[in-house]
Amino acid sequence: MSSVWGNHIRISVFGESHGQCIGIVIDGLPPGIKLDLRKINAEMARRRPGQDIYSTQRKEADLVEIVSGFFNGYTTGAPLCGIIKNSDKRSVDYEDIKDIMRPGHADYTAYVRYSGFADYRGGGHFSGRLTAPVVFAGAVANQYLEQKGITIGTHLLRIGKIQDKPVDPVNITSHQLLQFRNMRFPVFSQETAEKMKEEINNARMDCDSVGGILETVVLNIPAGLGSPMFESVESRISSLVFSIPAVKGIEFGSGFELATMRGSEANDPFCISEENGRKIPRTRTNHAGGINGGITNGMPVIFRTCIKPTSTISKPQCTINIKTMEETEHVFKGRHDPCIAVRAVPVMDAAAALVVLDLLLEREKQVGWNGGL
Amino acid sequence: MSSVWGNHIRISVFGESHGQCIGIVIDGLPPGIKLDLRKINAEMARRRPGQDIYSTQRKEADLVEIVSGFFNGYTTGAPLCGIIKNSDKRSVDYEDIKDIMRPGHADYTAYVRYSGFADYRGGGHFSGRLTAPVVFAGAVANQYLEQKGITIGTHLLRIGKIQDKPVDPVNITSHQLLQFRNMRFPVFSQETAEKMKEEINNARMDCDSVGGILETVVLNIPAGLGSPMFESVESRISSLVFSIPAVKGIEFGSGFELATMRGSEANDPFCISEENGRKIPRTRTNHAGGINGGITNGMPVIFRTCIKPTSTISKPQCTINIKTMEETEHVFKGRHDPCIAVRAVPVMDAAAALVVLDLLLEREKQVGWNGGL
Amino acid sequence: MSSVWGNHIRISVFGESHGQCIGIVIDGLPPGIKLDLRKINAEMARRRPGQDIYSTQRKEADLVEIVSGFFNGYTTGAPLCGIIKNSDKRSVDYEDIKDIMRPGHADYTAYVRYSGFADYRGGGHFSGRLTAPVVFAGAVANQYLEQKGITIGTHLLRIGKIQDKPVDPVNITSHQLLQFRNMRFPVFSQETAEKMKEEINNARMDCDSVGGILETVVLNIPAGLGSPMFESVESRISSLVFSIPAVKGIEFGSGFELATMRGSEANDPFCISEENGRKIPRTRTNHAGGINGGITNGMPVIFRTCIKPTSTISKPQCTINIKTMEETEHVFKGRHDPCIAVRAVPVMDAAAALVVLDLLLEREKQVGWNGGL
Amino acid sequence: MSSVWGNHIRISVFGESHGQCIGIVIDGLPPGIKLDLRKINAEMARRRPGQDIYSTQRKEADLVEIVSGFFNGYTTGAPLCGIIKNSDKRSVDYEDIKDIMRPGHADYTAYVRYSGFADYRGGGHFSGRLTAPVVFAGAVANQYLEQKGITIGTHLLRIGKIQDKPVDPVNITSHQLLQFRNMRFPVFSQETAEKMKEEINNARMDCDSVGGILETVVLNIPAGLGSPMFESVESRISSLVFSIPAVKGIEFGSGFELATMRGSEANDPFCISEENGRKIPRTRTNHAGGINGGITNGMPVIFRTCIKPTSTISKPQCTINIKTMEETEHVFKGRHDPCIAVRAVPVMDAAAALVVLDLLLEREKQVGWNGGL
Repeated sequence: MSSVWGNHIRISVFGESHGQCIGIVIDGLPPGIKLDLRKINAEMARRRPGQDIYSTQRKEADLVEIVSGFFNGYTTGAPLCGIIKNSDKRSVDYEDIKDIMRPGHADYTAYVRYSGFADYRGGGHFSGRLTAPVVFAGAVANQYLEQKGITIGTHLLRIGKIQDKPVDPVNITSHQLLQFRNMRFPVFSQETAEKMKEEINNARMDCDSVGGILETVVLNIPAGLGSPMFESVESRISSLVFSIPAVKGIEFGSGFELATMRGSEANDPFCISEENGRKIPRTRTNHAGGINGGITNGMPVIFRTCIKPTSTISKPQCTINIKTMEETEHVFKGRHDPCIAVRAVPVMDAAAALVVLDLLLEREKQVGWNGGL
Repeated sequence: MSSVWGNHIRISVFGESHGQCIGIVIDGLPPGIKLDLRKINAEMARRRPGQDIYSTQRKEADLVEIVSGFFNGYTTGAPLCGIIKNSDKRSVDYEDIKDIMRPGHADYTAYVRYSGFADYRGGGHFSGRLTAPVVFAGAVANQYLEQKGITIGTHLLRIGKIQDKPVDPVNITSHQLLQFRNMRFPVFSQETAEKMKEEINNARMDCDSVGGILETVVLNIPAGLGSPMFESVESRISSLVFSIPAVKGIEFGSGFELATMRGSEANDPFCISEENGRKIPRTRTNHAGGINGGITNGMPVIFRTCIKPTSTISKPQCTINIKTMEETEHVFKGRHDPCIAVRAVPVMDAAAALVVLDLLLEREKQVGWNGGL
Repeated sequence: MSSVWGNHIRISVFGESHGQCIGIVIDGLPPGIKLDLRKINAEMARRRPGQDIYSTQRKEADLVEIVSGFFNGYTTGAPLCGIIKNSDKRSVDYEDIKDIMRPGHADYTAYVRYSGFADYRGGGHFSGRLTAPVVFAGAVANQYLEQKGITIGTHLLRIGKIQDKPVDPVNITSHQLLQFRNMRFPVFSQETAEKMKEEINNARMDCDSVGGILETVVLNIPAGLGSPMFESVESRISSLVFSIPAVKGIEFGSGFELATMRGSEANDPFCISEENGRKIPRTRTNHAGGINGGITNGMPVIFRTCIKPTSTISKPQCTINIKTMEETEHVFKGRHDPCIAVRAVPVMDAAAALVVLDLLLEREKQVGWNGGL
Repeated sequence: MSSVWGNHIRISVFGESHGQCIGIVIDGLPPGIKLDLRKINAEMARRRPGQDIYSTQRKEADLVEIVSGFFNGYTTGAPLCGIIKNSDKRSVDYEDIKDIMRPGHADYTAYVRYSGFADYRGGGHFSGRLTAPVVFAGAVANQYLEQKGITIGTHLLRIGKIQDKPVDPVNITSHQLLQFRNMRFPVFSQETAEKMKEEINNARMDCDSVGGILETVVLNIPAGLGSPMFESVESRISSLVFSIPAVKGIEFGSGFELATMRGSEANDPFCISEENGRKIPRTRTNHAGGINGGITNGMPVIFRTCIKPTSTISKPQCTINIKTMEETEHVFKGRHDPCIAVRAVPVMDAAAALVVLDLLLEREKQVGWNGGL
C-alpha cells in the first residue's frame, strides 16, 4: 500500500526513474472539472529538470499524456490516469555500482525491504523523479481549488545559510502566492535570490549539495475542514509531505518556536472581521497556522518543511559493498541537483493541493450530483 | 474516519472529556500476546493527571477495564477493547462559556465542523484526555515490541527556555531509554529537571503556561520496515503523532538543521559492524534518524516533536461570542496543566509503539499462525 | 481489520458471546441526528433472544448504553459508542468441549487462525450475538434514512420447505415494508407464518434446525448512489451481509434466475413516470434489483440472502478432537435457535441501513456543515 | 474510491472502452515473483474477444505492456503497472445514441452519478472491457499461488437452459481445474458444450442474448485465511466478484439450497485425513464451500456466480431519451457477446486469484524479507 494515498480521492503512483514511463491514477475526482492543459503543463515545467545550472542536467520534456477519465475537456469522474515518458536515461551508470550502497540514498533499505529485487537504476521507485506524477495530480487538484478561490503558494525560506523573510501569517495575499508560483527562485527579494543561487553554486563547485526550508501557504481555505484525532489537517498534510523524498521535518504555524512561548502569547485571540458585509470569525495572530484541534479555522494554513541536501554528491564517500560486506570508498557519478529544495517548491504546492482537495471533498456535495435528477 | 488509525492494526478511539467513559478498540492484534496488566497500569500512571503541581488537578484513577479480545491472560486476536471511566468531572464549569470561544482551543473549529452539536464540556472529543486510551493501546503494543527487543523512550529536550542535551543518535542505549520511562521528568541531568520545574512553576504563578520539545527514540528496530512514497516511516509516525493535541511540529534525525548542512556532512556513511559474530551494516552518523527513503535502516529512529503551551490559561483573553458574533474579553477557569509537554511524554512513547507495531506486522508472519496446521 | 467496516462511516465491533459486554463504535456519523431511543430499543427487541420457542432460550435484555458521541439528544459527530451487557452466560458448558470441534461452527477455523488463543466460549467473537451491536448501529443509521424518506424492510421468503410469495419488485410499498418490521414472522400471509412456525417446530422437536431465505427491500433510495467496479452497490451490500454469520448466498433483482433468461426479457425498459409534477425515469420491470452498473437507478433495491440452518443442533454428530487428532462422536448441548433465519431479519435491515447510509454520505454535503459560517 | 480494491495488495484500474488504453496498477506485490509472460498472455487470450461467433466481433490483441515494478524477470515490490492498448474502436456508433439510455446498461445511472460527464462511448469505464486488466492482475497473482500449490478453476455450470454437472465439492482435483483453464467451453462433457453453443447461437440468431452460471473452485488453499465479521472470505470474494459487470448473485458451498436443509444435513462432519504422513482435519462433506465463520477450513473453496444475459441486444427496445425526457423505441447496434458468461470464466479465475493472494499476504511473512539481514 506504499503508493496509494487519500480518503476521498485516491492517488496511485507507479514507475521507476529509468523505466519506460512513470504515472499516476487519480480515483475519486469529481466529474465536470474543466481542465486547462496549458496550466497543467506550466506546473510540470516548474518541476522539470535540466533548465539551468541549479538543477540536474537530465533533460526530460515531462509532458503528461492523460489516457483516461478525461473526455471532451472535462473530468468524467472515472479514474484519471496521467503518463509521463522517461526519455533521458543513462542506466548504464548504475550497473557498476549496484552493490555499493550510496550514503543518504535508499539503496540499502530498498535492498533489505525488497531482498535485492528492487530496480536500482537511478533509485528506481525511490527516485525524486516520482514527484513528477504528484505535480501533475496537484495541478489537476489545483484547478478545482481555483474555482473555490483557494490559492496555494510556496517560497524558499532558506537555502543553506541564506534566509528569506517569512510570510506574514495573517496578511499574506493571493497576489503574493501567485507571484511565488511564477518565479524560479520564489523569494521575497531579488537580492536574496541571488545570494541563494550563489550558495547553491558554491556547493556545486565543491562537488557538494546544500539543503533548504520551504514555507507553504494555503489561502482562503474554508473553516471546518479536517477532524480531531487521526485525520487532523496536520496528520493529513504531513502524511503526504513526508512521501516527498528529502523532507525530514515539518512544522505548522509558529512550530518549534512554540516550545519557548507562553500560552498567553501563543493563543491566537479571536476577533470579528467584516468581509463583504458578513461578520466572520478570524484570529488576530496566527501561531496555530490556521488549524485548531486538527480543523481549519479559516486563517491561512501555513507550514514549513525542511529539505535535506541532495544525497548524490560527487565527493568521495565512505560506504559498503552489500555483496562483499566490506567497507569501501567511492566517488559516485550521475547527474543531480545541487539543491533539491528549489525543484521541491512545485511538489510542495502539489502536495498541499491534493490534501486540500481530499479534505474539501469530505465536506462538499459531489459536484454535479443531482440526487436522482 | 477521524478516530480510526492503522493499516495492520486498526485503533478506534471514542469518548469525551466529560462523558461517562473513554475507550479504544484495537483490531488486528496478533493472538497470543501475554499481557502484563501491571505494566499497562504503570504506563497509565505515567500519564495520569493530578499527581503534583506540574499537572492538572483533575483526579482520575485511569484504570483500564479490558472488556474483549483478552482471555486467560493472552490476547485472542479478536478486537481488544479497553474502557476508562471518567470520574472527576466538573461539567458545570462549561455551561456558562459554551458560546465563548477559548483561544487556542478547538471550540470554534468544532462549532463549524459539527454545526454546534459537539459536546463542548471540557473540549469533548478534542480533549487531551483522549490520549489516555492511546497510552493504553501503546502499552499493549509495547509488550509485543519488548519480546522483539525493541525499546522506546522519550525525554524532555526543552521546556520553555530550558534545554536538555540531545541523545547521542548513534550510541543511545536501551538502559538510558528505560530510565527515561521511569522518571517523572525524563531528562539527562537532575539539575536540568529542577530548572524545568522552575520554568513551569513560573508560568503557573503567572496564570500562564509554557511549551516544550520532546525527543523520542526507537531502538533495535529492524531494518526494512516502512515503504517508499505514502507509507514512509516518517509519514506513518507523523500521521499518528499529529493526532496528539498540542503537537505542532516534528523532525526526524537532524531535521531542520539539515537545511544548513552540505550533503557531504548530512549523508551518513555506511560501515560494517560486527555484532554477535554477524556483520551488520550500520551508519557512522545518524542524521537521517534511522530512516532512508522512508524505510528503517536499523539505526535508532529518532524524532523530535514540539508541544505548544497549554491553551487553557487563567489570564484574561480577547475572543468572541459565537452566538452574538461580538468580541469580548474573558477569564477562563478550569483545571489545566501549566505545561502539557510533561504528560505528553508517555503519549509519545505510546504513539511510537503503535506505529512500530503496525509496521512490524506488515512484515512478520502473524504470530502463531500455523498455515493450516 | 476484520471488525472494521465502511468508507464514509466506519463501524468497529468488539466483544465475545460470553465476555462482559459487546459493543460498537460508529465513526463518521453526521452531527445533529436526533436519536429516538425508543425506536432503537424497539429494533433491539426485534433481534432479542429468548422470546418464544422459535428462538434460543438465552435471556438478554439487550439494552444499549450510548457512552459517547451523543449529547443533548443529538449525535455530535464524534464517534458514537454503544455497549450491551452480557448477562445470561453459561460459559461452563463450553469448558468440557473446547477441544471438540463443533461441525458447521468456526471452532476449527478459529483454532487455526488464532492458534488456540481464541475465546471459545459460546463461539466467542464469532457468535451470532455479535449481530446485536450491528442492529444497534443500523437503528441509528435508519433514523437518518427515515428523514430522507428511505424505507427498508425484510420478509421471510422461505423457511425450509415453506415459501412466502416474493415482493412485487416494482410496486412494493413503504407501508408493506413497515408492516414487515412490526411482525415477528414477517410474511405476506398469516397462513404462511403458521406453516413456517410448524416447520421450525418440527426441526426443534427433531433436535435439529432448519434454514431459510430472506428478501430485503430498500425503497425510495435515490438514483446515483454507488460506483462502477469495486464499490458497486452489490459489492458494498454483499461485503457487509456476508459478515452476518450463517449467510451463504446473496442475489440481486432476479438473481440466479437471470441465468436462464434472454436479454430481451432481463433488460428493464426505461419509462417516464410523473411524480409530483416531475418527470422521473423509472423501469417497467425490475430484474436488475434497482442497480445498473453498480449504481442505484432509483427503483427499489432488492436482494435475497440464504441463511443456513443453525449449526448448533442436539443430535449426535461426528467430529474430531483437535488435541488428540482423533475422530469422535458428540452430542453438543447449549441453547440455540432452531431457525436463525427469523432473528436474522432485523440484522438484515440493519446491514442494509448501514450500507445505504455509507453510500449516501459519499454524495451528500455533510449535514449541518456551513462551510466556515 | 470506486476503482481501488484490496487490503494487502491494492489494485487500481483505469481506462475506458474507447479510450486510448486501459490498465491496472498493482501495489503491494511481494518482490521476487518470477513472471512467466507467456502464461500471462495465455490468460489474456482466454478472455480476448473476436475469436469465434460466441463472442463479440471486436478484435483486440490484448497484449499487456508492463511498464513498472518488473525488473530482470522478477517483480520488484514496487507498483506493477500493466497497460493494454485499445485498437478496434468504433466510437462513432455511440454519438447518435448518447441521449438514448440503453436498457440493462449503466447509461442512465452513469448519467446521474456523473452528471452527464461520463464517457459514454461503449460504456466508458463501465465496459466489460475493463475486466481485461483484472485478468492480467489475476494472472500475475496466480503465478504466486502456483508456487504455493494453490489451483483455481471455473466451469460453465449453466448456459440458459443447459446445465453442466456440478463439481464434486470434496474430491475435485487440480487436474480437472487445469483442464477447465485450457478449454474454451469449460464443461465436464463435450456433449454439454455443444448444447451450450447451440443455446448461445439460438440467442444470437434471435438478435438476443442469454445468461449463465459459473462455478469456481480454489483448491489447496490453506486453512486459517480470512477473518470473522467484515473480512470474511465470503465478504472479500463477493466484494471483488460483484465488480465484474453482469454478476447479479453469488453463493458459497451449497448456497441457496441450504435454505431447505436441516442442520444435521448441512453441517460438514470433521474427520482426520492422513496426507503425506500428517494427520489433517478435513470435512466429509463440503456444504460450507470450504469456509466456516468466514475463515477457510482447508477444504476446496467453492462458489457459484450468476451472469445476466448481455444487455446489448439487437432487438428493438423501449426506453427513454434523457434529454427530451420522452419515451422511445430503439434498435441498438454495436458488437457484443451473445453470452458474456463464456468470457467471464477467466475473469472469475482472476478475481479468485486476487482475493486469495490478498488473504494469503495477510498471513505470510513477506517473501524475501530478511528482517534486516
